[in-house]
Amino acid sequence: MRLVCSFFFFLIYSCTTAFAQQQSYVDAKELTLIGKAQPIPSFYHRVDTARYSGMPLAVKKLFTNAAGLAIVFKTNSPVISAKWQTTDTAAPSNMTAIASMGLDLYIKRDGKWVFAGVGRPKGNNTVANLVSNMDGTEKECLLYLPLYDEVLNLQIGVAPGSHIEPLQNPFKGKIVIYGSSILQGASASRPGMAYPARLSRKYGLNFINLGVSGNGKMEKEVADMVADIDGDAFVLDCAPNPSPEQITERTAYLVKTIRQKHPQAPIVMIPSVVREGGNFDLKIKERVANQNKNFKTEYEKLKAQGIKDLYFIEGNLLGTDHEASVDGIHPNDLGFDRMLQVIEPPLMKILSKVKGL
Amino acid sequence: MRLVCSFFFFLIYSCTTAFAQQQSYVDAKELTLIGKAQPIPSFYHRVDTARYSGMPLAVKKLFTNAAGLAIVFKTNSPVISAKWQTTDTAAPSNMTAIASMGLDLYIKRDGKWVFAGVGRPKGNNTVANLVSNMDGTEKECLLYLPLYDEVLNLQIGVAPGSHIEPLQNPFKGKIVIYGSSILQGASASRPGMAYPARLSRKYGLNFINLGVSGNGKMEKEVADMVADIDGDAFVLDCAPNPSPEQITERTAYLVKTIRQKHPQAPIVMIPSVVREGGNFDLKIKERVANQNKNFKTEYEKLKAQGIKDLYFIEGNLLGTDHEASVDGIHPNDLGFDRMLQVIEPPLMKILSKVKGL
Repeated sequence: MRLVCSFFFFLIYSCTTAFAQQQSYVDAKELTLIGKAQPIPSFYHRVDTARYSGMPLAVKKLFTNAAGLAIVFKTNSPVISAKWQTTDTAAPSNMTAIASMGLDLYIKRDGKWVFAGVGRPKGNNTVANLVSNMDGTEKECLLYLPLYDEVLNLQIGVAPGSHIEPLQNPFKGKIVIYGSSILQGASASRPGMAYPARLSRKYGLNFINLGVSGNGKMEKEVADMVADIDGDAFVLDCAPNPSPEQITERTAYLVKTIRQKHPQAPIVMIPSVVREGGNFDLKIKERVANQNKNFKTEYEKLKAQGIKDLYFIEGNLLGTDHEASVDGIHPNDLGFDRMLQVIEPPLMKILSKVKGL
Repeated sequence: MRLVCSFFFFLIYSCTTAFAQQQSYVDAKELTLIGKAQPIPSFYHRVDTARYSGMPLAVKKLFTNAAGLAIVFKTNSPVISAKWQTTDTAAPSNMTAIASMGLDLYIKRDGKWVFAGVGRPKGNNTVANLVSNMDGTEKECLLYLPLYDEVLNLQIGVAPGSHIEPLQNPFKGKIVIYGSSILQGASASRPGMAYPARLSRKYGLNFINLGVSGNGKMEKEVADMVADIDGDAFVLDCAPNPSPEQITERTAYLVKTIRQKHPQAPIVMIPSVVREGGNFDLKIKERVANQNKNFKTEYEKLKAQGIKDLYFIEGNLLGTDHEASVDGIHPNDLGFDRMLQVIEPPLMKILSKVKGL
């Protein structure tokens, strides 16, 4: 009703289903999936929840969300389409449907990954063009999957007569980031705008997104799983979720377990973004201050205990104008951009010293 | 299902309905509505579509959306709640429900409007707390209404025993901006992040949002309506919607009609943002280039014809990294921020010369 006819909507909406259905489709499982912590049986899950069955139910469910996963391929097709199916959940009120259950395509140009188009979900079962009217040269493609939903099925379509082939993982190393909804991608505007994805494209590194919305609480079973991953570095962006008391109780176990299994890997701690909901809500303000105070105290205790290569990145993560959140809790794209301006320089300096990255 | 229990969601979700229903409510019509071009009978409509009945149907429908409208009031309540009803439309896939059909609250602190909280829609009929746990001092409040929906009913709740009263319009003058979906607010993350709203808060000026998604096409009937408004200045951000040919056909009539009725008012033309969907889609790329070329040509012709106080603001509105859109068409909050970095300095310089602003 609202999206009345205009050239752009004609171009993008009305063409999309009819035209997309005429493409030749290949199951994405025949292409290359990247962004997973470890090779596991469930293709579109981030973590093997059967192997780590002791993790809390909510955490296990969230690890079925495809945040940070992407399909890479090459094609000479002038049109790229997709058919994809997600679960029957709807987009949360603080996210776009494109981000939570849609697709986000990038194409390599002059050595850089450049935005090409999105897959706009129409409910949980969509057929749509991602990009059209391209020249017919061979292109390397990177397609991010939904941040807040499980992918049940995905097929990539190209024009009949064009070819599509798997591409080798263009990103090297493995930097594991464990954290909250903010890490999972709330509230980036599209899947590729989650901050680990932005870092991967910019630096050609594998950032592994282990964000679990509202549930990055450092439980022992989750800490054991994180430490099992063969990461080159570990980033802990989990301060927003546990209570201040849980932070005091649980941080040391997580850090020490990672350190025990990875004697050389840098471990980087990031405090919670300011919660703009705490500008006037005194309880929220107090809670976030205590979370960050306790996280910093744990860092200092661990350093004093001799844990090497442990870092704490501080700074004003969302700026000073209070405009960088969608809802007082989660950064919008402006917030993520400001967050990267603070954490990116020290983080990349730390990672530059890791052999092989 | 996905929003499993955590402290924050407990704080914000589970308290919200039960608690919000215990407040004392006042109809927002008893408070002060701002952001309207003219006083008209339909309280939550932007334009009197009965008076301008010759406008295209799609345009008339879009002017029932509450983009840019806000309620201002003062209260000493530690909690502010809302009950609001919108139509049966859902959020578009490129917008959050908070932006399209939710609420966005700011409170004045040290002379500045500071974000306080949002109203998260639960369908089209919601009761929710916007902010809680505040100190009980008197506060000036500014509540933005949904960008992409019509408000059918709105009540503001305060704690029993607290008072709530209308506040005088805190913004002065009237700067009319006519344009596309981008102006209407797609895809800001929340209603107050639409760019005219950001300018109003920052400069204390009344920016009037006449964005009509996909339909800012400068039809004669719409041009006549725009020119009828007693604006101190007029900004034309409508290049994204008409075809390149329509831009050539229609721009002069719009500018001259405004100039005829407002001999002194600055008229500021803004070209279309780059469409990131045109990074690889050659048709989109060509279309946008032609829209902007023709808009600039019309500007130059009008200047050559002696139209005074006509301006054209140019620049790289979305930056160079191609990350500033939600969908290749509409800016995300990062895109709006970059857009303001380009247009704000020259626009505010132009407005600073207008008597009374």
